[in-house]
Amino acid sequence: MNDDKTLDPHDWEQARALGHRVVDDAIDYLRSVRERPVWTPIPGDIKETYSEALPWEPTPVDAVYETFLRTVFPYTTGNIHPRFFSWVHGTGTFTGALADFMAAVMNPNCAIGEHSPMYIDQQVLGWCKEMMGFTPDAGGLLVSGGSVANLTALAVAREWAIERYAAAGAAANAPGAATGATRPLIAYGSTETHQCVSKALRLLGLPELCALPADEHFRLPPAILRARIREDRAAGKLPFCIVATAGTVNTGAVDPLEELRDIAWEEGLWLHIDGAFGALARLSPTHADELEAIGRADSLAFDLHKWMYMPYEVGCVLIRDLALQRRTFAASAHYLLTHDRGLASGPDAASNRGIELSRGFKALKVWMSIKEHGIKKYASMIGQNIAQAAYLGRLIAAHPDLELAAPVTMNVVCFRYRDVDVDNKELLMRLHESGVAAPSYTLIHGRYALRVAITNHRTRMEDMEVMVAKVREIGAQLAAARKC
Amino acid sequence: MNDDKTLDPHDWEQARALGHRVVDDAIDYLRSVRERPVWTPIPGDIKETYSEALPWEPTPVDAVYETFLRTVFPYTTGNIHPRFFSWVHGTGTFTGALADFMAAVMNPNCAIGEHSPMYIDQQVLGWCKEMMGFTPDAGGLLVSGGSVANLTALAVAREWAIERYAAAGAAANAPGAATGATRPLIAYGSTETHQCVSKALRLLGLPELCALPADEHFRLPPAILRARIREDRAAGKLPFCIVATAGTVNTGAVDPLEELRDIAWEEGLWLHIDGAFGALARLSPTHADELEAIGRADSLAFDLHKWMYMPYEVGCVLIRDLALQRRTFAASAHYLLTHDRGLASGPDAASNRGIELSRGFKALKVWMSIKEHGIKKYASMIGQNIAQAAYLGRLIAAHPDLELAAPVTMNVVCFRYRDVDVDNKELLMRLHESGVAAPSYTLIHGRYALRVAITNHRTRMEDMEVMVAKVREIGAQLAAARKC
Ligand SMILES: Cc1ncc(COP(=O)(O)O)c(C=O)c1O
Ligand SMILES: Cc1ncc(COP(=O)(O)O)c(C=O)c1O
Repeated sequence: MNDDKTLDPHDWEQARALGHRVVDDAIDYLRSVRERPVWTPIPGDIKETYSEALPWEPTPVDAVYETFLRTVFPYTTGNIHPRFFSWVHGTGTFTGALADFMAAVMNPNCAIGEHSPMYIDQQVLGWCKEMMGFTPDAGGLLVSGGSVANLTALAVAREWAIERYAAAGAAANAPGAATGATRPLIAYGSTETHQCVSKALRLLGLPELCALPADEHFRLPPAILRARIREDRAAGKLPFCIVATAGTVNTGAVDPLEELRDIAWEEGLWLHIDGAFGALARLSPTHADELEAIGRADSLAFDLHKWMYMPYEVGCVLIRDLALQRRTFAASAHYLLTHDRGLASGPDAASNRGIELSRGFKALKVWMSIKEHGIKKYASMIGQNIAQAAYLGRLIAAHPDLELAAPVTMNVVCFRYRDVDVDNKELLMRLHESGVAAPSYTLIHGRYALRVAITNHRTRMEDMEVMVAKVREIGAQLAAARKC
Repeated sequence: MNDDKTLDPHDWEQARALGHRVVDDAIDYLRSVRERPVWTPIPGDIKETYSEALPWEPTPVDAVYETFLRTVFPYTTGNIHPRFFSWVHGTGTFTGALADFMAAVMNPNCAIGEHSPMYIDQQVLGWCKEMMGFTPDAGGLLVSGGSVANLTALAVAREWAIERYAAAGAAANAPGAATGATRPLIAYGSTETHQCVSKALRLLGLPELCALPADEHFRLPPAILRARIREDRAAGKLPFCIVATAGTVNTGAVDPLEELRDIAWEEGLWLHIDGAFGALARLSPTHADELEAIGRADSLAFDLHKWMYMPYEVGCVLIRDLALQRRTFAASAHYLLTHDRGLASGPDAASNRGIELSRGFKALKVWMSIKEHGIKKYASMIGQNIAQAAYLGRLIAAHPDLELAAPVTMNVVCFRYRDVDVDNKELLMRLHESGVAAPSYTLIHGRYALRVAITNHRTRMEDMEVMVAKVREIGAQLAAARKC
């Protein structure tokens, strides 16, 4: 007899039955999602349960699952719904969820060692390079999302700049610079650059982003950029990086990548592209040309949990120069030494290429999903979302009570109810409460706008009509209420 | 008829059947893990499949799953096995995997919005505070692991130091410091501090860790630290942070937390504790006193995917001062504005408290697991691992052909085969190849040692005996081979 305790189930057959039940519930939930409201407010008595204190005593797992079904499952974000268009949330898939389950069952650590998950992780990274026009010998890493992808890339760009300016005899604002005057390293973007870029620079201890005013198409203006770089250089600053955006969060605009690539070459700067969602539009014939230059960036950040419809979390950073990436992150610790054989042999530790040491097997969902559907299918799904956005743009243009707040160039549509007496924020909150559709919002030229971002494989053309009808209905109600 | 494409299954019943099959395979795999080798080399023909190029065409999902079963599933790290003791890998549980599955099905984004996962995320963070003796109003965040937890804490510590020294009129090595001489901010640790701390400082653009030589118990020596801080201050440097370790990666040593807490107060420094695995030993009566001071740190990093046996990835950072944490990370972007009602209301965005914006629902596995087992059970599991390490230490001490390389004080045992003719590295590789047990290795006082870290809920006392017997057998073989 063995007295040792374990967290394994007492009764494996009961665990199996629970597993089957969870799968059944998931299937029913996913299959019927279109019939449910996009979003449901959380009842007060349910919300109270969220503040229960740390449990000291056990509860049978079936009872825990019941509590989950009652208090958590029904009140989720809603982004798996076909009419969820808020922020830039992906949708997830059933296969992706099965893969996440298997990843957790195997529970490998994709940091180090000789085992299949380390290789699948590399293979998926290789596929990302292939999709984005990077060469197989480029660097990169699967990470938790766009924020960490941008941070990782900018850390490498900083390393590059420090090495380069050190070689040129200029003391840049270098990490660990012990004493003495240093000259600030400046990165350039536009006022439409995502806030995670500013956060990354701040974390890296670099001066804030030089955010140039975007042009009327919400793009970084090359002539102004070039002039500013020269001006800054003349003032003793050290320009080091252009952060271009392929698909801005506000309107889906794409900066003029070719021209920015040229400026970066001419001025000796690093070109980083934040393509969190937009980079994937490269797979669609509609945007392949505009996004071709992505493959010639020095680094690229993009997300698979957005427009590749993978469950959270999985993003990707690609770095042209793998050796430089390793110089930025590699550290040698006794306890991570590579051996010749056995478990401790295997590929280069992932911690040599990024911030994290322990890493889960997020590659598995990407591997299974891309194998299942093939990249052509992804290309057509992305194209479908772009067509839906274009259709929505036409619907809005056709309705005199609505107006577009920005041109529709990819998968983002910003619009508002035109009547100045109607508060579009109130309209949005009522739209959420109706459960019919869930756009988000932003400010365009300082004015509030509803914002629809379509990175959703469940959306249909008809959903655009449903949403527009509901927006018009609520708008008319609000207008009538104001006028009486 | 609807022409729109989707990534949903064509046939939901087929998807259901696959789901059931995946659950069955997982149950069989977990239930029988003890009968299999810890680790298996990957056959050459299987390894070749890992370099197949990006798939353009689809493959039926059942066939993809078959490929997974054949090429991936059998060749994993092995850390779910009862005799896996390498690095500091957790084990995972079946309930944790089910929760990860449901998290991926719901696929919420725990960054922003009014939905249950945002609240469960907060609740779990609250439980972490309770476990570690932090007050409910403290800050913190669930993150991907120890590396990001340490990085997040050190970013807050830097912010604190910059604000503090700015108030005192001294220009610290501040992020974005535009020009002029700055004085370097110095963080202190020991030569046993985990490498992710050095990486974090480098990423933050700070001077490298002042790593003081650990004492003979592998602990940071307070008197030397105090002297060094004063010396550095006299030399114009700006000491700002003590990084104490609760459970070093090499030997499981705990720095003298009480004394370091006092030094930090007296010298006006931030006390950060890296308790990646060791902080959890606070739950065990054997270590509760030694680790009591964790609750008085300014910040704490620890992992739930290590000694809480959760599947990857989930770590936690706690920060005493929530307002400071928000000043470090908060940014206001139009597209993340909080509304009064609807989906866009809800708790403070997680991006205001850390590096990431999009975040998955990693809280669910913690929530379900802690509810299922209760914290008392975790305390006894952790105690069991500590007792197993102590027992292993006694076994080694009792065998003249083995020697301990460091005292056993928690769940880490470093030892070697004593015969100087035996290459312990070769011994370890053969042990891995035997499939019997998988310790890792480190250098202790410059000499190679096998290293057993027990954060494994499947391990039994008897496994210690099995491993020792195999080590002695391989050692004797190697000794014999060298001698003839
Ligand atoms: C353009 C852009 N960059 C970066 C990000 C951040 O990505 P993540 O939320 O995955 O961190 C986003 C998120 O919406 C984005 O739209
Ligand atoms: C003491 C210590 N700190 C930090 C870490 C890093 O944690 P993670 O691998 O979760 O990033 C480890 C990992 O083993 C550790 O042992």
